[in-house]
Amino acid sequence: MAGVRRGESNDGGSGGARGPVTDHVDETAKRAGGNLKWGVDPPGVLPAWIAEHDLGPPPVVRDALRRLADLPDVGYSRRAADLGGAFADWCEVRHGWRPDPGLVVPTADVLQGIWAVVAAFSEPGEGVITTPPVYPYFHDVAPEMGRRSLECPLRHDAGGWRLELDDLATLLEREPGARVLLLCSPHNPTGHLYSRADLQAIVELTHRHEVILVSDEIHFDLVYPGGRHCPTLALPDAAEHTVALFSAGKAFAISGLRAAIAVFASRDLHHRFNKAMPPHLLGGVGRAGVEAAITAWQHGAVWLDELVALFERHRRMVVDVLATELPAAGCHLPASTFLAWLDLSTFELGPDPAARLVETAQVRTSEGHAFGTGGVGHVRLNFGTSTIVLQEILDRIVKALRS
Amino acid sequence: MAGVRRGESNDGGSGGARGPVTDHVDETAKRAGGNLKWGVDPPGVLPAWIAEHDLGPPPVVRDALRRLADLPDVGYSRRAADLGGAFADWCEVRHGWRPDPGLVVPTADVLQGIWAVVAAFSEPGEGVITTPPVYPYFHDVAPEMGRRSLECPLRHDAGGWRLELDDLATLLEREPGARVLLLCSPHNPTGHLYSRADLQAIVELTHRHEVILVSDEIHFDLVYPGGRHCPTLALPDAAEHTVALFSAGKAFAISGLRAAIAVFASRDLHHRFNKAMPPHLLGGVGRAGVEAAITAWQHGAVWLDELVALFERHRRMVVDVLATELPAAGCHLPASTFLAWLDLSTFELGPDPAARLVETAQVRTSEGHAFGTGGVGHVRLNFGTSTIVLQEILDRIVKALRS
Repeated sequence: MAGVRRGESNDGGSGGARGPVTDHVDETAKRAGGNLKWGVDPPGVLPAWIAEHDLGPPPVVRDALRRLADLPDVGYSRRAADLGGAFADWCEVRHGWRPDPGLVVPTADVLQGIWAVVAAFSEPGEGVITTPPVYPYFHDVAPEMGRRSLECPLRHDAGGWRLELDDLATLLEREPGARVLLLCSPHNPTGHLYSRADLQAIVELTHRHEVILVSDEIHFDLVYPGGRHCPTLALPDAAEHTVALFSAGKAFAISGLRAAIAVFASRDLHHRFNKAMPPHLLGGVGRAGVEAAITAWQHGAVWLDELVALFERHRRMVVDVLATELPAAGCHLPASTFLAWLDLSTFELGPDPAARLVETAQVRTSEGHAFGTGGVGHVRLNFGTSTIVLQEILDRIVKALRS
Repeated sequence: MAGVRRGESNDGGSGGARGPVTDHVDETAKRAGGNLKWGVDPPGVLPAWIAEHDLGPPPVVRDALRRLADLPDVGYSRRAADLGGAFADWCEVRHGWRPDPGLVVPTADVLQGIWAVVAAFSEPGEGVITTPPVYPYFHDVAPEMGRRSLECPLRHDAGGWRLELDDLATLLEREPGARVLLLCSPHNPTGHLYSRADLQAIVELTHRHEVILVSDEIHFDLVYPGGRHCPTLALPDAAEHTVALFSAGKAFAISGLRAAIAVFASRDLHHRFNKAMPPHLLGGVGRAGVEAAITAWQHGAVWLDELVALFERHRRMVVDVLATELPAAGCHLPASTFLAWLDLSTFELGPDPAARLVETAQVRTSEGHAFGTGGVGHVRLNFGTSTIVLQEILDRIVKALRS
């Protein structure tokens, strides 16, 4: 299976000489190439909505895709079986936790993982808990699958948003029919980084109430200095009721190729999942997504470090500009993700602040109410772009909201 | 969404100057590139097993993959929404039937489509009918999904294999719990091409017994002169209980990229399927597979015509060589597919003739008993390779079986 790596030096994940992040976006090429983020509005509007950054894929990933196109064929292979090992190596070095590659299940994307876990481990009518405001699609799984939506809303103060453990405990006591908790860790849209202590408490609570904990950790590699991502499965007592979902898509901007993983730490839970959701029902994962993810995890470390350093400057730029120029906008420093969660409720922008910003600022953000309870009056701003584009986005928003 | 097609002339599906099929296989590159068909045995063994031909992808598809690697990103796009239209255009020109692009559901592969239809339209304990000998994975869906396996074995005579309609009628009368019929049309492994009249009769029978008809038509584009593929959904009365499954994978050898479709002709059935199997549960289809399939259907016609002409010579070569050199081997001329279904039962090769051929002929075929009832004593031989490799495969088999 070494073919696609032929001629590539093994740089131990360092990224080698092909590493530099280019702080530039070719807007015309983005629009021409069919990119969704850049494609929904006319060229005058700058996109800061969908959770994809503009600076990928890394050159090593692009090289891997070119080598794939040059292979004698793109037929059947067993390359997807290498995803688990590449992920385990990456995770061990970057996060101090080594999953068992044999308990890694390839999926098309993290959303498929969520839907599949809900299908596998709950029955119609049982409850699925979300923690709004949260990634909008989380709200769809319960109604689509005939489950009951339950909410444990986050709380917020000047420092940001957090899950109050007592709220979760109360909800679980009150709702014995709750069967799944969807955790977004790190949290989209607030960038909240769950502490080890909080995660351990969540694990204990879900364990006690026999609730399956789905830990969507898709932003795991985008954590800023001072913070640290704690993989839920690394915690004591998590294994037997936790499924963690990962992808290289957010960090390396390769989501369109579709390759993600559902990770287990219990053979029994893994077995029960496979029985309920056989691999053929999940479908095969395409070779391009597999090569891109493996390459990112094997050779993308230096590039990613540079990207995080750039976005570290961007998150401070967002907070500083808003604090200085628009003090009435609520904004905290996100500990993770390339997303800022802005409270614009004092600006009286009507029922859909994001739509208003498209009109008045020529910037598309994500509409807050789509994130559920707590989202009204907010927008999510994606700062995962070039510094110049971000500066223009902020200038436009400041100008529009000041007038 | 025009990006990936930039600079490519619209040749109306003709394939233009980039079309020629190269009747050559680089065995070393195949093995080095991670190809499964060429990868399971040591280099001395020639592969004639898994149903993938060795001569793809076409140059236009390779170009599309290179353009994808050169795009500014491989992020989120809506390109998968173009699959239905590209398929409809292709199908209309090649098969005289135009499906509604709005009733085309992307899947990772045809197997996912089968599993998903069984999950959506049957309950545990209900019956799933297969028509053995047939593609081995068909036998797995019922046990994996807790359904009951029912069989309507094909019958055979000197001219080949066929489904006896009375057998199906009797089975359906006897088994009111039958809920799904898995049809493989054209049929793998026998290459049988169902006649329009037989298909119409099958449609009527399944309709009368309220059975969902799953029509796996993955080999639809590999039909030899004198034959014609009839799309099941084109038949009167099929729409309301039929799901047809297609992929560009078999004809263009792009299965590893994972893009297939489930096609409906009834809004109601399509709606019921989507409700039972929401798109997020099926997972997103990767951009590389989508671009490859769309490109194949838009620009692959001439290349495919050449491929079929080559395989037309190959199928005759297989039948002629065996008739001349090994008259005791049973073999009919397949009307479709690049697969020959050989009856080697007179050679006393033991319980696993394919394993014996690996030892004695250094050729790996697919083992007949894996295809179910009627498969014992048979092997499936894949003639979808270069003429030189096929000649060597046949020479080796003849030599081994003669001694």
